[in-house]
Amino acid sequence: MNDLAAYNLAVEQEINEIDFPLYPSNLYDPLRYFMKLGGKRIRPLLTLLGTELFGNNKESALHAAVAIEVFHNFSLIHDDFMDEAPLRRNQETVHVKWNNNIALLSGDVLLVKAYQLLAKQKNEHLPDLLHLFNKTAIEVCEGQQMDMDFETRSDVSIVEYVEMIRLKTSVLLGCALEMGGIIANASASDCQLIYDFGQHIGIAFQIQDDILDLYANPEKFGKQVGGDVIANKKTLLNLKAFELANLAQKEILNQLSTENDLNFKVNKTRELFEQLGARAACEKMMKEHYSLAMKALNEIVVDDISKQPLISLADFLMMREV
Amino acid sequence: MNDLAAYNLAVEQEINEIDFPLYPSNLYDPLRYFMKLGGKRIRPLLTLLGTELFGNNKESALHAAVAIEVFHNFSLIHDDFMDEAPLRRNQETVHVKWNNNIALLSGDVLLVKAYQLLAKQKNEHLPDLLHLFNKTAIEVCEGQQMDMDFETRSDVSIVEYVEMIRLKTSVLLGCALEMGGIIANASASDCQLIYDFGQHIGIAFQIQDDILDLYANPEKFGKQVGGDVIANKKTLLNLKAFELANLAQKEILNQLSTENDLNFKVNKTRELFEQLGARAACEKMMKEHYSLAMKALNEIVVDDISKQPLISLADFLMMREV
Repeated sequence: MNDLAAYNLAVEQEINEIDFPLYPSNLYDPLRYFMKLGGKRIRPLLTLLGTELFGNNKESALHAAVAIEVFHNFSLIHDDFMDEAPLRRNQETVHVKWNNNIALLSGDVLLVKAYQLLAKQKNEHLPDLLHLFNKTAIEVCEGQQMDMDFETRSDVSIVEYVEMIRLKTSVLLGCALEMGGIIANASASDCQLIYDFGQHIGIAFQIQDDILDLYANPEKFGKQVGGDVIANKKTLLNLKAFELANLAQKEILNQLSTENDLNFKVNKTRELFEQLGARAACEKMMKEHYSLAMKALNEIVVDDISKQPLISLADFLMMREV
Repeated sequence: MNDLAAYNLAVEQEINEIDFPLYPSNLYDPLRYFMKLGGKRIRPLLTLLGTELFGNNKESALHAAVAIEVFHNFSLIHDDFMDEAPLRRNQETVHVKWNNNIALLSGDVLLVKAYQLLAKQKNEHLPDLLHLFNKTAIEVCEGQQMDMDFETRSDVSIVEYVEMIRLKTSVLLGCALEMGGIIANASASDCQLIYDFGQHIGIAFQIQDDILDLYANPEKFGKQVGGDVIANKKTLLNLKAFELANLAQKEILNQLSTENDLNFKVNKTRELFEQLGARAACEKMMKEHYSLAMKALNEIVVDDISKQPLISLADFLMMREV
């Protein structure tokens, strides 16, 4: 992972080369703006590392890598609109800075741009890449719909919740990696394994997200600790706590959801989740998915030294302090 | 065109076979609903006739044909949302029957479904089909953005207006036909000619739409005659009238835009547009594009008898009574 800068540079250059015409400016200005908001560019990095794992050079997968990043940004523009989010990376979201119609239509164009980038890969890989990308794009939409449906449901199960985060966020990590494999002509079973690696890392990362939201060190956490609790958001912690609570404890949890003293609400919830074993149960699930990811990576038929960059990246992603 | 029913049946069967899962129902119920609202299915018919023109049987282009129809329906769902249209084919639009978020997200899925259908065509044609489809999809979005931008502009030129209708509606007709050509391995120049045929027929049809809105026989016209005038919509008639009017006539046109007596408004505008020669000018443009379409079709290197179904379809489209 020494030359991470080289990967990032290659990705940013490819992003800068995307053709966003000047006219109609209301369609393309938002895309120029949004693609420059930055972000960690983890997904394209996965595609490049995925192709290198199987012996290709990173340049061979650059179009596909950026296609994935462009797709990710399309989904962010539309999700921000649906979630009525005012900010993304501390900057105004597209529907706020412009308007709803522009967020919708420029998002549509960005989705097509992802396909344009993908179509620049060699013709021989196009059918497989397209098949994987289409399947993944639909799953990401399904995950977003499930997430919205959950807001008004009181009977969401833990299995459903994990399926939601798998679809909404994790399949795209698997897809990013597997595209690298396809481009390097990896075997079908190795492609499946690298996909599984990405998917389980993604699920572990999302579970960690839920835990950190309540248990992070406030001095090191970028946002307000307890934000999910304050918003009464369904998270794995919350679902697990209700699963483990007895009737009296459920009553307390329900009372807390309408508590006006937010400090008290967050502190009391944190304490109760810990007592109930919800935190420990979530950490256990997180570790299980991390192990499944490593098991999949381990089974891939390439030498161990080649796997090191992906292990380092996974550890980097999971390293956030509680 | 005797066996139009056979084409329609094949298209409807292929549409019925699209995989819309049951879950999440809020994502897929709207798509099942919308795809069954019907419509003339002109675009898939063009793809099938386009491939037959070059000697293939219609079955060879069925996936691409339905991909175009699915894309068209995606754009209708999102356009209805942007235009705040309550009805589509006399039924509630998706954002009204469900809600805005569902219209956005199910539209997104439908766009990906179009790519899934396209990807079912033979691998050898996939790069060319994908290239054409991506380019067209982006142009359709550009046309919609121009249309929205025009609402708040007072300096729209006739050239810009025709470019808007070309992008918003006509390129998709050209694309539908050219896909048929690609699948039948037509030459690059024949592909360009069949595309041009579709594009010019599309522009002629849209200009006719503008004329009919004000000059149609009320007894035979499906909707209110003068609807565009009542809504002060920019149409080719309107732009042409302002181009031809002197200062005093412009003043009258501006006064009419705030007229409350709608019958008077429509009748007076109709009379003035006729006096100014706006109607005649629009009809001339319409005929010019129709001629350009026929010229392109004429130049295609296949025997004349094979072109007859496309000529019949074009005449059928342009036959609506004034």
